[in-house]
Amino acid sequence: MTTFSDIEQAQKRISSIVKTTPIFQSRLLNHWLGHNIYFKAECLQRTGAFKLRGAMNVLAKCHELGKLPRKVVANSSGNHAQAVAFAAAQFGIPAHIFCSDAVSPIKAAATEFYGAELSTFSSRTLADKAVEDASKEEGVLWIPPFNHPDIIAGQGTVTLESLQQLQEMNVKADAIVAPCGGGGLLSGAIVTNAAYKEQGLLDNTEVIGAEPLNANDAARSLQSGVIEVLEGTPDTLADGAATPSLGPHTFKIVQSVDDFYEVDEIQIAYWTQWLHHLLKLHIEPTCAMTMAAVAAWISNKSPNQHVLVLLSGGNISQATMSKIWQTDYLQHPPIMNPDA
Amino acid sequence: MTTFSDIEQAQKRISSIVKTTPIFQSRLLNHWLGHNIYFKAECLQRTGAFKLRGAMNVLAKCHELGKLPRKVVANSSGNHAQAVAFAAAQFGIPAHIFCSDAVSPIKAAATEFYGAELSTFSSRTLADKAVEDASKEEGVLWIPPFNHPDIIAGQGTVTLESLQQLQEMNVKADAIVAPCGGGGLLSGAIVTNAAYKEQGLLDNTEVIGAEPLNANDAARSLQSGVIEVLEGTPDTLADGAATPSLGPHTFKIVQSVDDFYEVDEIQIAYWTQWLHHLLKLHIEPTCAMTMAAVAAWISNKSPNQHVLVLLSGGNISQATMSKIWQTDYLQHPPIMNPDA
Repeated sequence: MTTFSDIEQAQKRISSIVKTTPIFQSRLLNHWLGHNIYFKAECLQRTGAFKLRGAMNVLAKCHELGKLPRKVVANSSGNHAQAVAFAAAQFGIPAHIFCSDAVSPIKAAATEFYGAELSTFSSRTLADKAVEDASKEEGVLWIPPFNHPDIIAGQGTVTLESLQQLQEMNVKADAIVAPCGGGGLLSGAIVTNAAYKEQGLLDNTEVIGAEPLNANDAARSLQSGVIEVLEGTPDTLADGAATPSLGPHTFKIVQSVDDFYEVDEIQIAYWTQWLHHLLKLHIEPTCAMTMAAVAAWISNKSPNQHVLVLLSGGNISQATMSKIWQTDYLQHPPIMNPDA
Repeated sequence: MTTFSDIEQAQKRISSIVKTTPIFQSRLLNHWLGHNIYFKAECLQRTGAFKLRGAMNVLAKCHELGKLPRKVVANSSGNHAQAVAFAAAQFGIPAHIFCSDAVSPIKAAATEFYGAELSTFSSRTLADKAVEDASKEEGVLWIPPFNHPDIIAGQGTVTLESLQQLQEMNVKADAIVAPCGGGGLLSGAIVTNAAYKEQGLLDNTEVIGAEPLNANDAARSLQSGVIEVLEGTPDTLADGAATPSLGPHTFKIVQSVDDFYEVDEIQIAYWTQWLHHLLKLHIEPTCAMTMAAVAAWISNKSPNQHVLVLLSGGNISQATMSKIWQTDYLQHPPIMNPDA
């Protein structure tokens, strides 16, 4: 089980490579909502997503223990692939990424730029089989995308770093909101928040998760009490949260989440447009989605809540961008503040 | 005529309100091109565009001289409107903006949020007439969008600030590239570069302008030696550069530009997609366009040129975003480096 001390150690371990990403605010959005939203811009992280933190923590810990693998492998066509490729290069280790041949050319090019070998297969199942075989060779480490204590500890540094930045701004968060795919980022937020509350640094801060309605395995898992698995490939703009299921490590932690929202596709597109426009950041629908959870959560709260939103990444395909911007959602600003 | 000293004074005058915007780089893009590109992110400026600098300089100078107007007016439906509204609010002066009723709801909402009164008219011509009438009242100052020495001095602070940031990074720019609409930003770059060269701080640095082929009044003006005016409304994604013509002040300075490129609509969309993706910034096609000029300019240069690109703003309508992302230009990265 990942502890807060693991997250603190992860932060020390990865700080020389991982960027301290800025926190953005929109005066206009705060005015319209009547609340204060703080956006942690992990889209500006190296490789374009927070995933680098977990992969870096795994390898930096191996290095610390004098147990660096000879080679690393991973199966991913998304942000985790680029994270593993980049992290391995920092330690001069070869990385081999296995994925379906549906991988987008830009993600493939970026993964190879970071120095990894890329093997594509006609299906994800075949890629999964290949990575399993490759991981059996001696000295090869298979870096999983979320379901591992060291990955969760690395992803937890997003929340820890954000809370340190908010402290410098003399702000106490009332809520921390994160998207939920495999649950690594959300788990890290839950562990960090619990420790901050124990230490008296935060009071009643809630951790809130958000997931696409069309890929709601985590919501269903939280209801049923067992890990539910998506059937088939979900149809959602929030592709970073289309992970088939939580893992045992993340599920155990995510069960302590304070609130959890399922977001429909219109809300995902709506908030992606608005956050692109207001923050001037190119952020994934996966994380813009969290604003629908924020809007729901603050709707029955007193004014001037302080909400930390974790913007997980900024890697978006043309097909997704084209879908996001099909309809004009900028006609009607999200006004909830009666004085706005 | 705007001098470098005017730009230095403008920088001091506006520094408490205007943000020092960061410079972004893309390792991947630099690798592909074989050159080093430095992006000045004025999309992260307050109001989402560099235009604030000019408007702030005008009013801060009035304030300095004890001649603050009773009220300011401007005719714009774009970034200048928000800049004037925001700047006026800093000095507690009412602002009245006149524009066509084709103004996008988000730009109207932002302008009003900054405290300005907004009057819309059935045509731009009627709005122009109304602002002229309003400006005749006593104590009313009409703030023009580009054709004024104090506006040019304010916009010049983008280049000055960038060169100061590059100096801290020990980088000497070989070229400074700016989009050209009314020519304020480009004029400021030309004046600043000339002064830096005179002072021996830069050597052979060239200033390069870029304009949409479909709104090429400046290119035609540079050829003919007189100010050419666009006929009708140009059809271009780069709406910030669709200004009908340069003004006498900007034309005089822009005539000293070292190189000037006309960019077609496909190139504009291509570079907007790539810069959104690589920089994770929501930037206007008007400034992404400059990368086509960079690509043309570096094509016959020795490797490792240092190029400063001025990203002017990040206010984009849904209609424009939808057009930009219609076709997938991310399939083929812009590779010019034989070793990439």
